[in-house]
Amino acid sequence: MVAKVKMAVRGDAQIVLFVILCIFLLKSCNGAATDIELDAKAQLLHRLDSLNLLLYTFLLILTVLTIWTFKHRRLRFLHETGLAVIYGLIIGAIIRYGFTTSSTILHMPVVPDNSSKYNQSVPPDTLWLRFPEDKGGGNIIKNKTFAYLFRGEIYKQDNEIDLKATFDSEIFFNIILPPIIFHAGYSLKRKYFFRNLGAILMYALIGTSISAFVIGALMYAFVQLIPHLSASFTFLDTLYFGALISPTDPLTIISIFNDLHVDVNLYALVFGESVLNDAVAIVLSGSIQNYGERYQSGSGGFETVAFFQAFGDFVGIFSLSLFIGATMGCITALLTKFTRVRDFPLLESALFVLMSYSTFLIAEASDLTGVVAVLFCGICQAHYTYNNLSPDSRQRTKQLFELLNFLAENFIFSYIGVSMFTFPKHHFDPGFIFAGFLCALLGRAANVYPLSFILNLARKPKISLNYQHMLFFAGLRGAMSFALAIRNTVSDARQAMLTTTSLIVILTVIFQGGATTQFLSWFNIPVGVDEEIEGLSHNGMRSYNSMQDGSLPSSGIKPNEKALLARIWGDFDTRYMKPLLTHSRPTLLETLPVCCTPLARILTTTQQMTQDEAVRKADSDSDFCLEDRELERRRTSVQPVSFHQPNLNYTINPCYQPNSTDATNPDEPYVILNLHRR
Amino acid sequence: MVAKVKMAVRGDAQIVLFVILCIFLLKSCNGAATDIELDAKAQLLHRLDSLNLLLYTFLLILTVLTIWTFKHRRLRFLHETGLAVIYGLIIGAIIRYGFTTSSTILHMPVVPDNSSKYNQSVPPDTLWLRFPEDKGGGNIIKNKTFAYLFRGEIYKQDNEIDLKATFDSEIFFNIILPPIIFHAGYSLKRKYFFRNLGAILMYALIGTSISAFVIGALMYAFVQLIPHLSASFTFLDTLYFGALISPTDPLTIISIFNDLHVDVNLYALVFGESVLNDAVAIVLSGSIQNYGERYQSGSGGFETVAFFQAFGDFVGIFSLSLFIGATMGCITALLTKFTRVRDFPLLESALFVLMSYSTFLIAEASDLTGVVAVLFCGICQAHYTYNNLSPDSRQRTKQLFELLNFLAENFIFSYIGVSMFTFPKHHFDPGFIFAGFLCALLGRAANVYPLSFILNLARKPKISLNYQHMLFFAGLRGAMSFALAIRNTVSDARQAMLTTTSLIVILTVIFQGGATTQFLSWFNIPVGVDEEIEGLSHNGMRSYNSMQDGSLPSSGIKPNEKALLARIWGDFDTRYMKPLLTHSRPTLLETLPVCCTPLARILTTTQQMTQDEAVRKADSDSDFCLEDRELERRRTSVQPVSFHQPNLNYTINPCYQPNSTDATNPDEPYVILNLHRR
Repeated sequence: MVAKVKMAVRGDAQIVLFVILCIFLLKSCNGAATDIELDAKAQLLHRLDSLNLLLYTFLLILTVLTIWTFKHRRLRFLHETGLAVIYGLIIGAIIRYGFTTSSTILHMPVVPDNSSKYNQSVPPDTLWLRFPEDKGGGNIIKNKTFAYLFRGEIYKQDNEIDLKATFDSEIFFNIILPPIIFHAGYSLKRKYFFRNLGAILMYALIGTSISAFVIGALMYAFVQLIPHLSASFTFLDTLYFGALISPTDPLTIISIFNDLHVDVNLYALVFGESVLNDAVAIVLSGSIQNYGERYQSGSGGFETVAFFQAFGDFVGIFSLSLFIGATMGCITALLTKFTRVRDFPLLESALFVLMSYSTFLIAEASDLTGVVAVLFCGICQAHYTYNNLSPDSRQRTKQLFELLNFLAENFIFSYIGVSMFTFPKHHFDPGFIFAGFLCALLGRAANVYPLSFILNLARKPKISLNYQHMLFFAGLRGAMSFALAIRNTVSDARQAMLTTTSLIVILTVIFQGGATTQFLSWFNIPVGVDEEIEGLSHNGMRSYNSMQDGSLPSSGIKPNEKALLARIWGDFDTRYMKPLLTHSRPTLLETLPVCCTPLARILTTTQQMTQDEAVRKADSDSDFCLEDRELERRRTSVQPVSFHQPNLNYTINPCYQPNSTDATNPDEPYVILNLHRR
Repeated sequence: MVAKVKMAVRGDAQIVLFVILCIFLLKSCNGAATDIELDAKAQLLHRLDSLNLLLYTFLLILTVLTIWTFKHRRLRFLHETGLAVIYGLIIGAIIRYGFTTSSTILHMPVVPDNSSKYNQSVPPDTLWLRFPEDKGGGNIIKNKTFAYLFRGEIYKQDNEIDLKATFDSEIFFNIILPPIIFHAGYSLKRKYFFRNLGAILMYALIGTSISAFVIGALMYAFVQLIPHLSASFTFLDTLYFGALISPTDPLTIISIFNDLHVDVNLYALVFGESVLNDAVAIVLSGSIQNYGERYQSGSGGFETVAFFQAFGDFVGIFSLSLFIGATMGCITALLTKFTRVRDFPLLESALFVLMSYSTFLIAEASDLTGVVAVLFCGICQAHYTYNNLSPDSRQRTKQLFELLNFLAENFIFSYIGVSMFTFPKHHFDPGFIFAGFLCALLGRAANVYPLSFILNLARKPKISLNYQHMLFFAGLRGAMSFALAIRNTVSDARQAMLTTTSLIVILTVIFQGGATTQFLSWFNIPVGVDEEIEGLSHNGMRSYNSMQDGSLPSSGIKPNEKALLARIWGDFDTRYMKPLLTHSRPTLLETLPVCCTPLARILTTTQQMTQDEAVRKADSDSDFCLEDRELERRRTSVQPVSFHQPNLNYTINPCYQPNSTDATNPDEPYVILNLHRR
């Protein structure tokens, strides 16, 4: 390095000669003063931006290192998301009380121009500041107009770094949430998800709605009791609060479940519900807003119409978003099936990422819900597209989204911690906070217990009381609640909601998250159950069995006892969707009626016709449509081989999940081989 | 899907009963009108944001698909970056002339409050709009203050989507550039880079400075000839233009070179120069700005002092940034060497990414140059940290940055295209544009030819004239020039620079990029040279030889003819840096003097002491310090094995670059094995 710097010095010494000539030219420099000052100002703002990002990067590094220490020492009393929150709180407090930077931001109070006839009920989006003529003050800018963008309401003088340590809520919705939600869909263990489809939908769709209304009603009743609150909260406000506090967060619980190998069906219920109820909550809160707008514009007219419109919104937005997500997933599958883009894994991965992200954006741009769309897009990508990808892209996309998800979720929890202190729009109202905690608990109970009772009437493997307690307990609040709460913080009511939501998130994540292991043992939940192995596992058979007879407190599930919904869909999927969208067999030539043969021939690739039986079964997930005998047959079709060379020992474990980047023969099964040197 | 929607409908039907009760409560709703309207407004803005992002995502998808078609059909007349620019131009034109959306953004002209005593020479950063009292207009907001952030100067009424299809230049600097630059460092082929270190530093440091001053002086002379320009441009302005138009872009040329397997030394010269001159240009332009500020504040005092301060800035900022980058790289190496974070590849990858990004931010926050820091951080990460990573993380980080780089570079070129039409601050001045093109060419020539002449005086394998022509021709302008130009667009002069820079970038990328193949054959540059294989390749030997005798028009390089700088550094690196930062041998116990043995013992890991010879040589790059005999010995140490089972044929290619995600035995060499079914 020293050498390089020397080089630089020597090099530039030569320029000096040349440049000294220029100095004479520079003497004639003048004007452009504003430019230079603006440069300096831009530089200062850029520095603050960097400092701001650096703060969070530093927090994340700290979190990563501490998580590692915890994992290394097998400590489980605090989870990584809890850690991120706590570090965030500490740093937030330091920023709040430690720094008293002299503000370098220039403020100017302004009033509307006399000529303006502004009579909207909302503040304008942009201000145009016409700079005045020179009043003899020296170097005031003359005759220029500058644009200013709306930032928010002001209550008191804000510390500069405070303003800077916060992000636009747009960043959460457009940048941070999509990878988290997509990853949830992409990594969903679909076999168990579909097996418990009925219960998951019940909890997520009906349960979340019940919870939102119960919380909304209880909060409204409570607010009426307190004089200073009753003025600022309408029922719509409390209902909105109910909708935003209802979704549960999968992150913390699920990663503990993963570590402990908790019973797969409980895993599926908790994960499936919390993934879907994020989607439900966001649609629900949107519908409530729409209801508010209609109600407003109708000015007290016929509210029932507005209500049913809102209900229609809910159903329409949810199903349209789902449709967009699934469609985009299928389009990606078709693109990867019928082009040879897999020859260029980088392009393929880029296409995959871009198509998935555009799903989110298309839904958002059409006033639908990107979260729902990207969730179902993720499920479709995993179910269909994944099978068409080259081995390189499979691994790359999985690893990419895993990493993005990790960074995004830890960022959001750090941010929740920091913003508790730095976000200028908190409104602490002890009464509202207390009521919020109580109602959140009651709302969760109103979701889990009655619905479990109803489900148990029809469901064969009943959900035992201990499982119900665990479901109740798994109701941590997380990123989605926070993101919804921080979206609009203009009024007092909204600010009190944000504060309460932040506190609920922080406390549930730290305490409920930390106590999960303890609760699992109190409720006698089976842990250490053989994990479901993705793709084709060698102990797949064993895990499959243990799940069936050990975990749920009922007799084993026979194939015909699988959820009706799952069976119908599974059949349709195997016969039509998979042959159309992937290289799987049976092909459409075999499943479609004879009249459609020409069409089927177009939609069937050569690869699909000629490929080997063993290969085509190497699916992304050991799907719900696979039966035991298939698993067994597949496992026995290639035997593990052992052999040795004079100085080497090889063990070959056949494995159909290609992990290699060598894409020259992407269709051939790969074997990963550990080479033990003696 | 149909089934799920049905489920949703059935589920929600139950809520209806419950909710009808609530309707009565809702009748009492009132107020909170502003909240709801603000919600609606936030939603609209969010939709526009999404639309905006969608636009670019769509452009990238289009580019990916077209690139694939081109690669598939082996078309080379247009390169992917060229494609991205062209698509960008088309979409930009459509947005500009196709849409005439009625603006839904609310503007309000404002004037400073009477009480304000604002006498700065720059516009304020924030405006505080005190909303007036109710003047009887109905539902005007009462008694609220809103904050507005500075956006820029306004010339004419802007179309809404226009404003929206542009991004803050902060996004380029904080989000888009870092992965591109880091990837350049991380994927640098260090062997050839160090072998040509002298020439690369000469072109990048001295050449870029010469080019900037030549362009600056010529442009100033030209501007003086045109009356309407001479008023708005100072010499400092034209010098700044020289600095921002001097850096060349590696992307387009390099990916063509990659496709064609162009001679590795030419590759190293072009790539090394263009990577470093980005760094030089950004520091140079910063120094020019600083000079301007000092010159300004001194108000015509002693400019020579300001000049030498600026020169000191240049050297100081460059070397400090380099130091920060290298230090952070080394810290990451130490972290990964002395902790067992590699047991958790996800954490390890996250740590790697976060440390690398924080390097950029630390440099930016300390008023240094993040680009320089992140570049050298990338080089150190590849040189040291990479060797400590688990196989999973190696692959993950490589693939991640490859993908990020691909997306970022295509995004930036799309954006250059779109912004040509939509960015509101273009200033087309045909004279300035023409002069810009001419001076850019002359500046490049003033860099390449004189310096090549000087280099050839001392250099043993001379750089032939054809190579010089190719170097001249490889001077496409790209992302860095554009990013620097768009950073400040307040004055007319800056806007004219932006327009000229955009045009130069667009035209050089499309035409020079497209004609590269043609030029390579005109200049008789050897193509189809055996590619350097990363890590340890089986034909590494052959490529090494062919490079030595075939490509450069001189006799082969003997070991002692390697650059002196490279030899000194290589020796130091092998003896001290690598043993300290990685698990390589010889260990510090062997290289440090005896008095330091206790220290050396602490810094040497057990793994380092006990590991196998073959493993420790499995370095990330076949480094400049490796000699031929090493390569040969390594290649012969494990023999390929062939054997077969009744129905299977195996060929095992020993390979020390682990590709597997199986991290259970990360220290053991892996073998990837193609399994041919018979």
